[in-house]
Amino acid sequence: MDTLSGASRNVLLRAEAIRLVIFDVDGVLTDGTLFFDLQGQEYKAFHTRDGLGIKLLRQSGVEVAVISGRSSEIVRRRMELLGVERCFQGFEDKLAAFGQIKHELGLEDAQIAHVGDDLPDVPLFRRVGLAVAVADAHPHAAALAHWQTSLSGGYGAAREVCDLIMHAQGTLDAAVARFL
Amino acid sequence: MDTLSGASRNVLLRAEAIRLVIFDVDGVLTDGTLFFDLQGQEYKAFHTRDGLGIKLLRQSGVEVAVISGRSSEIVRRRMELLGVERCFQGFEDKLAAFGQIKHELGLEDAQIAHVGDDLPDVPLFRRVGLAVAVADAHPHAAALAHWQTSLSGGYGAAREVCDLIMHAQGTLDAAVARFL
Amino acid sequence: MDTLSGASRNVLLRAEAIRLVIFDVDGVLTDGTLFFDLQGQEYKAFHTRDGLGIKLLRQSGVEVAVISGRSSEIVRRRMELLGVERCFQGFEDKLAAFGQIKHELGLEDAQIAHVGDDLPDVPLFRRVGLAVAVADAHPHAAALAHWQTSLSGGYGAAREVCDLIMHAQGTLDAAVARFL
Amino acid sequence: MDTLSGASRNVLLRAEAIRLVIFDVDGVLTDGTLFFDLQGQEYKAFHTRDGLGIKLLRQSGVEVAVISGRSSEIVRRRMELLGVERCFQGFEDKLAAFGQIKHELGLEDAQIAHVGDDLPDVPLFRRVGLAVAVADAHPHAAALAHWQTSLSGGYGAAREVCDLIMHAQGTLDAAVARFL
Repeated sequence: MDTLSGASRNVLLRAEAIRLVIFDVDGVLTDGTLFFDLQGQEYKAFHTRDGLGIKLLRQSGVEVAVISGRSSEIVRRRMELLGVERCFQGFEDKLAAFGQIKHELGLEDAQIAHVGDDLPDVPLFRRVGLAVAVADAHPHAAALAHWQTSLSGGYGAAREVCDLIMHAQGTLDAAVARFL
Repeated sequence: MDTLSGASRNVLLRAEAIRLVIFDVDGVLTDGTLFFDLQGQEYKAFHTRDGLGIKLLRQSGVEVAVISGRSSEIVRRRMELLGVERCFQGFEDKLAAFGQIKHELGLEDAQIAHVGDDLPDVPLFRRVGLAVAVADAHPHAAALAHWQTSLSGGYGAAREVCDLIMHAQGTLDAAVARFL
Repeated sequence: MDTLSGASRNVLLRAEAIRLVIFDVDGVLTDGTLFFDLQGQEYKAFHTRDGLGIKLLRQSGVEVAVISGRSSEIVRRRMELLGVERCFQGFEDKLAAFGQIKHELGLEDAQIAHVGDDLPDVPLFRRVGLAVAVADAHPHAAALAHWQTSLSGGYGAAREVCDLIMHAQGTLDAAVARFL
Repeated sequence: MDTLSGASRNVLLRAEAIRLVIFDVDGVLTDGTLFFDLQGQEYKAFHTRDGLGIKLLRQSGVEVAVISGRSSEIVRRRMELLGVERCFQGFEDKLAAFGQIKHELGLEDAQIAHVGDDLPDVPLFRRVGLAVAVADAHPHAAALAHWQTSLSGGYGAAREVCDLIMHAQGTLDAAVARFL
């Protein structure tokens, strides 16, 4: 696949070990825009192709979780629809949520991937086995990632990560074959 | 027309036979973003130039239908406004809806085109006479399409398909002439 | 100005004579997306820099009008805020509205500019003294325009037209100077 | 950092002296689109990465203010969340608001930066020590700025300005280090 052509052997080896993918929300599962109306109500926009990627990744046996510094009922509802129960919101210190998920699932750092776009993702980037920055990530975050997607947050970046991990684990072809 | 310059003789021959065009919705008639508010209500955005293309294609005698894995009243209402009555939503298995439309209209596979952006469109891509992927389609879907638009979903991709088919069938010039 | 560098002497001469600029709405003053909610209510997005251009153009003595095939209270309200009273909506045949405005203002075709993005603008393109297509216009409309903006509809295309006309009429420098 | 590579020694010297950054809103903290519904209610979209930049800049000891020609409760609420109390809205003449802020904080022109996108920002551009235009600014405004961001308004332009100033003042590394 074209979008995975930038993945080196090192990245593929890291991806092969992953049992849990943690996504940041704003700027990763969305394009980073925060919509508001006059009453202060918030709106959010996710991407349809990211949704399918998360479903397929979970079906392949990899866990998915969300850790976000902000908090919104919209995120909880969207993730629920995709079967993602571990939705940690309002965590400015993402390491706290990270420790809790890791403990619950009994995983090593090397088995966890984190997808982020900015400085609050950096503490996780330095811990996890596979740190992924979206194409339009802040340069400080991108510089510390093992891999960077070719698509921007909210426009398929999350899907690329799902594809990368399933490709590295040899589960992508079977998932695709179900549609053939 | 510039946007049709990528259409080979093979694609034009396939387009010439088409009597029905089936559009996927999210990522094809929209740019793939799924807007939500706090109450879980959804919002959708279509493109004005796609709307005119669908109207002109129907006036030229080609049927139009929609098959979508998701389901929204917004889609039904928009399609009704464009005169599209066959609106199959909530079909994760698109082949079931495909069989029903095909039967109703008494058409052969070679007379049907499908426009999609992702894996759920692949089963139809392998059946129809003309499989079209939007410019920003997932690589797995794009690889199985006969033709790929130059514009992304939600930004005129559907219009390009309408133009291609009308051009191949010799009905485009007359449709354009009505505006001259 | 950079954005006007593509304007030939012929285009500048045409722009010099303009006393009225008619803007299409969807795809010209907006980026062409049509937002809807579940109740069928519509939302529209205009651009702040287009708004200033229209204000300055009017202050320079050039009239501004809107002719749209669709109809929305949002457009009327936005145009009212910009001082544009002539707001012809729901005119699928734009020539009818064109004739009425022309008669009211007592203008010749050569004194009128039209900014459009698609086939319904073509009848006006063939009549007016200056036909402008936005950067992302449909190829059929762009082919019949005297000039094409470098920015897309909804992202400053209208402003470019205002700048072009004021530049050609020698009123741009004075308008800019008021901000210096 | 890549995004700061375009900053000359002159720009860095100007940035070093800044004690207050004034942001325009529409086209700078947003992408310039003005969303409306049928009732005339307005919606606005900010960017998550700009928000973090403004927070970090304030924590480094630099003041932040907003001066906007338009006025919206959405802006006041968003700025409040980011700790920005000086929110001057509805000021078509931005110099009036500028004078008031400058007086309140007891600053010199050379200690103030302004980030803008269009002609109404030009009077401030000619006064302040550091005038910054966003990537997609109107050419007339961009021509009078000391520096232009590489990202467009609403997509991280404000963050680039925060980074530039903190980099020039030697506070960026410490701020980043807190995330390491």
